[in-house]
Amino acid sequence: MSILVKDSIIVTQNADRKIIEGDVYIEDDKIVEVGSVSVEADFVLKNKIVLPGLINMHTHLPMTLLRGYGDDLPLEEWLTTRIWPVEAKLREKHIAIGTKLAFMEMVSTGTTCCNDMYFFEDIIAKEAKSFGMRCYAGFSIIDFDTPEMKAEHLLPECEKFVKKWKDDEIVKPVVAPHSTYTCSPETLEKANEIAGKYDTFIHIHCSETRKEVYDVLNRYGSRPLEQIKKYGLLTGKTMLAHCGWITKGEVKEIAKAKACVIHNPVSNMKLATGGYTPLPELMSEKACIALGTDGAASNNKLDMFETMKFTALIHKHHRWDASIVKAQEVLDMATINAAEFLGLNAGSIEEGKFADIICLDKISPNLIPRHNIISHLVYAASGFNVSDVVINGKAIMLDKKFMNINEEKVYEEAEEAKEELIE
Amino acid sequence: MSILVKDSIIVTQNADRKIIEGDVYIEDDKIVEVGSVSVEADFVLKNKIVLPGLINMHTHLPMTLLRGYGDDLPLEEWLTTRIWPVEAKLREKHIAIGTKLAFMEMVSTGTTCCNDMYFFEDIIAKEAKSFGMRCYAGFSIIDFDTPEMKAEHLLPECEKFVKKWKDDEIVKPVVAPHSTYTCSPETLEKANEIAGKYDTFIHIHCSETRKEVYDVLNRYGSRPLEQIKKYGLLTGKTMLAHCGWITKGEVKEIAKAKACVIHNPVSNMKLATGGYTPLPELMSEKACIALGTDGAASNNKLDMFETMKFTALIHKHHRWDASIVKAQEVLDMATINAAEFLGLNAGSIEEGKFADIICLDKISPNLIPRHNIISHLVYAASGFNVSDVVINGKAIMLDKKFMNINEEKVYEEAEEAKEELIE
Repeated sequence: MSILVKDSIIVTQNADRKIIEGDVYIEDDKIVEVGSVSVEADFVLKNKIVLPGLINMHTHLPMTLLRGYGDDLPLEEWLTTRIWPVEAKLREKHIAIGTKLAFMEMVSTGTTCCNDMYFFEDIIAKEAKSFGMRCYAGFSIIDFDTPEMKAEHLLPECEKFVKKWKDDEIVKPVVAPHSTYTCSPETLEKANEIAGKYDTFIHIHCSETRKEVYDVLNRYGSRPLEQIKKYGLLTGKTMLAHCGWITKGEVKEIAKAKACVIHNPVSNMKLATGGYTPLPELMSEKACIALGTDGAASNNKLDMFETMKFTALIHKHHRWDASIVKAQEVLDMATINAAEFLGLNAGSIEEGKFADIICLDKISPNLIPRHNIISHLVYAASGFNVSDVVINGKAIMLDKKFMNINEEKVYEEAEEAKEELIE
Repeated sequence: MSILVKDSIIVTQNADRKIIEGDVYIEDDKIVEVGSVSVEADFVLKNKIVLPGLINMHTHLPMTLLRGYGDDLPLEEWLTTRIWPVEAKLREKHIAIGTKLAFMEMVSTGTTCCNDMYFFEDIIAKEAKSFGMRCYAGFSIIDFDTPEMKAEHLLPECEKFVKKWKDDEIVKPVVAPHSTYTCSPETLEKANEIAGKYDTFIHIHCSETRKEVYDVLNRYGSRPLEQIKKYGLLTGKTMLAHCGWITKGEVKEIAKAKACVIHNPVSNMKLATGGYTPLPELMSEKACIALGTDGAASNNKLDMFETMKFTALIHKHHRWDASIVKAQEVLDMATINAAEFLGLNAGSIEEGKFADIICLDKISPNLIPRHNIISHLVYAASGFNVSDVVINGKAIMLDKKFMNINEEKVYEEAEEAKEELIE
């Protein structure tokens, strides 16, 4: 397949963060030419703002089915009366439909790659493969039985999962010990062994709430990040979701280990965790920061444009300084920073990179006039400005139409799944 | 003109906050029937989520032209090096085009009524009239010369403006002394006289930043709200923008006076004011709270759906309580609360009310499944889910197409205006 985007503003996100006017030509899975291109192509798009697809680094995909089921509740009540009882009823078919719906929402708002963590991750991986979503699929490990299997089967099944998917083109298996409050030291070590054996990433929740920090401290005598480090999991292949309640010392530890902090401001604010992932400190230590939406049950959408805006604004306001967490820095977190951390040959519009790109219509009332495109992408755009999405060279959405999925069927099945789950 | 919305979910926002499935029939400027309706109509819409149009209670409309011109700067530098130099160059034609663009953006994201405050307000009022936007047009009063006229002409011109527009059907004149730090006590009193003489609303900035509070306190010995009260401006017809740094005592004063607080969380966060309009305290005193975007230069959009989400989340996070500032309360602020304060026969879908309504497509990946429509409107929807907008019974946007304006021309002229202004 070949795709040509003509007469567009190209936000390259290359090393110079150059913005150019011109064309992007894609053949098979790669960006072949950027600049002034005159060739025939299977699909031709015109007058766009082109940028690398956004990378959503923390999702629980099937939770789209729980969107809006229990808001405005204290965290504890939300989990025990709403989320957990419904999660216990989840079966494979629900996972499949919730995941499809998540992919549609993510693609329609400009995400081309996600980093997930849930139960039934093999179903999720299959759905990613069939939809064409680039997906880091995190097999959840926890010390309790899950809706999918008994606790004692999780580690061996995780290893099977990793072996099954490790050579896939667009789905990459990830080992995902849930957190230090739900995984014993022994479980952490065993999860780490699997990750080490197959050289996969580790994805773990870390210091999301202050309660979590104190609970872990009481139980083990160390805070979550210390616990993660103590059992060997703090490495350059570790992705730490949240980190809203870490210390300055922990910031340095994370930077030193070259681990990645995944910031989920919308979910943190909606669940009222009260914490502020210390972005200024992490940036001054040159730690890797990426962004995520978290699950749709606590967001309640999967729009990375919205997450970019919240990211910039929450810290400006908190630190009384409008000049911190700048638009360019935020766009980097959502694109090239995440790609570089993942060792993924994407995250920028450059020749030879994987063709994971998104296009926005140049013309929309909220994007006029064009003083500064980077500012517009972070502060003025909405995910709904996205018109076209290409993942690994495949046109997934063109002119707002999905190319590869029966939309109506997904909506119907999602509503049916909802009925079953909350019966 | 008659419009029939069939087979839809109707978020009435009536006294019981009832949500019903059925039809809404509009004739001329009014909602004529709600329920099960079988009539012919000029326009028929189907399968929508229908709700009262959103009311954006704090705008500076022409500032769309400055969208993205100077972000990530400290407030003082932003004002002195970016905003003020460009504002000084504003001429009537810029005001007209910036206002048109603002109306397009607001309508496309579900706003049917705005409460503005700027220079050249007569131009803005004319644009509102010609576009069909319901607009409370605030004539700015300030102690300095404006881009439009010398300071000494402002009060007499304001009175002329009020007389000219006071009997208009959709444009209502408002007296808008800018703030207590830019208006002397004498100016406040004279502005108040005009408002009193013609029984108009007063729109004023109040306690947006802590600096403002201390400056006013140093100069006059009273804080902004005390100053507003001292000179007779704190009444049931006063709209106080921001109130991010008011005291508990001032909360009680505002509630007692039945004034309206306009909360602009996105602008406050982007400009890093550090303040939190005390919503929980205002609510427990039963003070009127409405919402605004502020100007596009400090937001950088005019999407009231986004503002609703920020409103709920900023306070949950700040107070460590996910159960405060609930979705229904936020939707009320953006609809019926504002309408009731304004004495406007709108803000709900009921027979006999003005037909200021908006429709969202029922089906979109971010609005599925439908556990709770109110939650979806506040937490999951985007302004871009809006498909149709009716103001005062007139179809302004149908199926995302503007019915009454040459879109392309506005975009071109807005880009031209930008070039002129930043030359």
